[in-house]
Amino acid sequence: MDAQTKSGLVDTQNLPDDREIAIDRVGVTNVRFPIIVRDKSHQSQNTVALVSLTVDLPHHHKGTHMSRFIEVLNEHGSVVHVENIEMILRHLQKRLHSRQAHVSFEFPYFIEKAAPVTGAIGLMDYTVKFTATANHDDIDFVVTVIVPVTTLCPCSKAISAHGAHNQRGQVTLNVRCRRFIWVEDLIQLVESSASSELFSLLKRPDEKAVTERAYENPVFVEDLVRNVALRANGDPRITWYRVEAENYESIHHHNAYAMIEKG
Amino acid sequence: MDAQTKSGLVDTQNLPDDREIAIDRVGVTNVRFPIIVRDKSHQSQNTVALVSLTVDLPHHHKGTHMSRFIEVLNEHGSVVHVENIEMILRHLQKRLHSRQAHVSFEFPYFIEKAAPVTGAIGLMDYTVKFTATANHDDIDFVVTVIVPVTTLCPCSKAISAHGAHNQRGQVTLNVRCRRFIWVEDLIQLVESSASSELFSLLKRPDEKAVTERAYENPVFVEDLVRNVALRANGDPRITWYRVEAENYESIHHHNAYAMIEKG
Amino acid sequence: MDAQTKSGLVDTQNLPDDREIAIDRVGVTNVRFPIIVRDKSHQSQNTVALVSLTVDLPHHHKGTHMSRFIEVLNEHGSVVHVENIEMILRHLQKRLHSRQAHVSFEFPYFIEKAAPVTGAIGLMDYTVKFTATANHDDIDFVVTVIVPVTTLCPCSKAISAHGAHNQRGQVTLNVRCRRFIWVEDLIQLVESSASSELFSLLKRPDEKAVTERAYENPVFVEDLVRNVALRANGDPRITWYRVEAENYESIHHHNAYAMIEKG
Amino acid sequence: MDAQTKSGLVDTQNLPDDREIAIDRVGVTNVRFPIIVRDKSHQSQNTVALVSLTVDLPHHHKGTHMSRFIEVLNEHGSVVHVENIEMILRHLQKRLHSRQAHVSFEFPYFIEKAAPVTGAIGLMDYTVKFTATANHDDIDFVVTVIVPVTTLCPCSKAISAHGAHNQRGQVTLNVRCRRFIWVEDLIQLVESSASSELFSLLKRPDEKAVTERAYENPVFVEDLVRNVALRANGDPRITWYRVEAENYESIHHHNAYAMIEKG
Repeated sequence: MDAQTKSGLVDTQNLPDDREIAIDRVGVTNVRFPIIVRDKSHQSQNTVALVSLTVDLPHHHKGTHMSRFIEVLNEHGSVVHVENIEMILRHLQKRLHSRQAHVSFEFPYFIEKAAPVTGAIGLMDYTVKFTATANHDDIDFVVTVIVPVTTLCPCSKAISAHGAHNQRGQVTLNVRCRRFIWVEDLIQLVESSASSELFSLLKRPDEKAVTERAYENPVFVEDLVRNVALRANGDPRITWYRVEAENYESIHHHNAYAMIEKG
Repeated sequence: MDAQTKSGLVDTQNLPDDREIAIDRVGVTNVRFPIIVRDKSHQSQNTVALVSLTVDLPHHHKGTHMSRFIEVLNEHGSVVHVENIEMILRHLQKRLHSRQAHVSFEFPYFIEKAAPVTGAIGLMDYTVKFTATANHDDIDFVVTVIVPVTTLCPCSKAISAHGAHNQRGQVTLNVRCRRFIWVEDLIQLVESSASSELFSLLKRPDEKAVTERAYENPVFVEDLVRNVALRANGDPRITWYRVEAENYESIHHHNAYAMIEKG
Repeated sequence: MDAQTKSGLVDTQNLPDDREIAIDRVGVTNVRFPIIVRDKSHQSQNTVALVSLTVDLPHHHKGTHMSRFIEVLNEHGSVVHVENIEMILRHLQKRLHSRQAHVSFEFPYFIEKAAPVTGAIGLMDYTVKFTATANHDDIDFVVTVIVPVTTLCPCSKAISAHGAHNQRGQVTLNVRCRRFIWVEDLIQLVESSASSELFSLLKRPDEKAVTERAYENPVFVEDLVRNVALRANGDPRITWYRVEAENYESIHHHNAYAMIEKG
Repeated sequence: MDAQTKSGLVDTQNLPDDREIAIDRVGVTNVRFPIIVRDKSHQSQNTVALVSLTVDLPHHHKGTHMSRFIEVLNEHGSVVHVENIEMILRHLQKRLHSRQAHVSFEFPYFIEKAAPVTGAIGLMDYTVKFTATANHDDIDFVVTVIVPVTTLCPCSKAISAHGAHNQRGQVTLNVRCRRFIWVEDLIQLVESSASSELFSLLKRPDEKAVTERAYENPVFVEDLVRNVALRANGDPRITWYRVEAENYESIHHHNAYAMIEKG
């Protein structure tokens, strides 16, 4: 292989390597990049992603060409949705001469939500992640939603004269699907599994409603992941999932945690 | 004061308080919110901010009304620039019946940059923060830019047979201005004070140029903040500044740090 | 000034500087260092601190000597308490030929606590920070405790048929004292100002007690900082304080915040 | 199952569950806990761990007993090393009536190191993680070391008239072993694979040596993981590894990344 190039500068990356060790993944991480994502109600929303782009590297190459990852990202433009992530993967495989390519885009995602009684409109923020791998012709796609919720402790409610400790929790749901599923549907699946969903804007009648709803729907962290698992099992679009819940316990400084993965 | 309201629900926040202690700041923090910011080259860019909104609370009120902060933010819409931040402050003062109001918006900010030799275009990301306070009629406005740079150590260069340790550093520049100054100008002020600016996309001839430029412009963390201070002193628009630099030393696991504040 | 030294290597830092700009602070940050801190009940505990050490630098010196900060830290040994922090400051002033010196040590701090009913013993973790500045002969010392607590919302309790939203909150109390005050006393001052303190270990009868106590002691974030301020005002040892509280609201994804600083 | 207990308080966790969904992991996370770890040179060192403890939960139980995880941790005491982590796992299996148990301890770890020329002694900090799972009688143990290093870019060196960009990088090495291996040996394995190791304390002659050593040993992030893989392949104690390297590029704001996992 000729490491000399048209710029006259040595192409060190193209030198042969004799350590006989292939690299599973090499590329760039922590790239902040503005993107546009399609959403269910408004067609698209602007947000900012943390991006990683990697490929595999055969044992006989010394290095990959890091600038090409950024070029592929730039050439692709800012619109990122499920369909065109496949194009990025194919583009990476071609430009980097690799069998595999991996991308992930993690970004804040916003949904307009009406308060339960007054209907006051606020913007709830979630975190969404698209992780995709191309292996030769195959594509593996995982969608992740990170959803903050309220959990109210069933034990605390059962044993206390009044009140029950409750707290903010966070559910991370990863899914593989056999056909398209909106991020909004996954978020709704999680929110309906908790003691209550969260809101950005609540007036007093709303706060009363949310407080009472949480008190009437106590869930352990175990109940939360089971409720999500039940709903995911019942959704014909979902072929695999992994759900984690973490409660920022209001009576402890540590967290309660539970996880179920569909085998 | 009547804590009973038209919703028929007690307004606990409106109850009198007899502890005789005024609160300097009360409100909401960590609100993620999509915003549109004006930029020098494209008129505007979409990004996502972490927002805090607070007011002062006189000693005789038990609590503020947290939902009103979110309402003010929502009513204002997503376009955030220097001029209309004053409107948010005035709106907060009015809705919360306060003398003072404080807001901060911190967000990633992107600038298209051409590589120094090939001219290849990439998107560099920075962090920008607008912090503003209204006190009665006065407005105090601070712009902050957080700029990653290269620093190459003058001592290491001077004493070594070849090479010199260099690393990514981060400069945080806060300024008060007597008239409008573009974020791009502040970033350029910082980048020209370092061994080299950073780029998102560099081809081999660019990498050669950037490496050699850094080697020819060694700066200690002390030089870096002094260079920024010199340029800020010479800019008639800047009335106050505080500059901090932190080098993620490539030979240590701790950081080198320097700070200058214009008195 | 002679930049040539006994090692025969140029001392670049000792070169003169003609920019006529003094540096307020220069040194090292983010140094992880194991320390031993005195505690009220056990005489001492082992922990790990994040340390920063800085000095001022007159305008005519190009740079400071970064390795000396680490030498001062090493020579001092691992025992860190209020009294001997002054020694570190004096040592820094002397070794770096500076008028001012600043240090901060931030570290996890543990207190054995008995559950309220069963008396079961657990280890609660807090974060403590010592920040100290020497200016010529003067020493300024600030102790900070970061204390997680439970807050239960008075409004939610007042308007709801049953239950009340509550959550983990965090109080940051900074104080200056005219005479020694134990970290344990500051933590106790904060914990007694909340709806309930937190525990590491609670059995069912304890959970019942903590849940009911929180329900009987609702506090807004405003109440929390005022309760701390009242107690601090009443403590003759405390000459200045700044108290901040941040509630990780269980019904919102943003936080409620309040701050009082004693003028 | 009887949910009524000797305290007279309902044991909600012991209620039967009819959702027919087993939980893979449930327990506590983010527990800060002071520990004592054995080290190669001093027999033991004090540090502070972030701990998680989880078990599996059969489908017919509504909940686990969160307080028992903390009790097991407390009863075990603060000394944590490879051998007695198995005891914690067995204890968890027994107290929680579970087939599986999982623990992880992540903590800063310190090694005294002499500077390469002057021999000046400083304390380098690393991050170490012990992750262990018991499945019935089997134990699976993974040791992780997170090691900061210097990397100097071979391409930048080859094409530039002088100098070469270099930076702090971070290597995460996870291993499974057939017999005991000191954390110090794993760290040394990683450090010898980079352009240079890092030091806490370097005097000028040391800085010269480290700068020149890095210049003479340029490594791409690809070389770094391959060097680690080669050494790990050659160590008869290591049966499995996964090595990741991330370079905080001094010329970019994003990171370069590579990973090799032994299949």
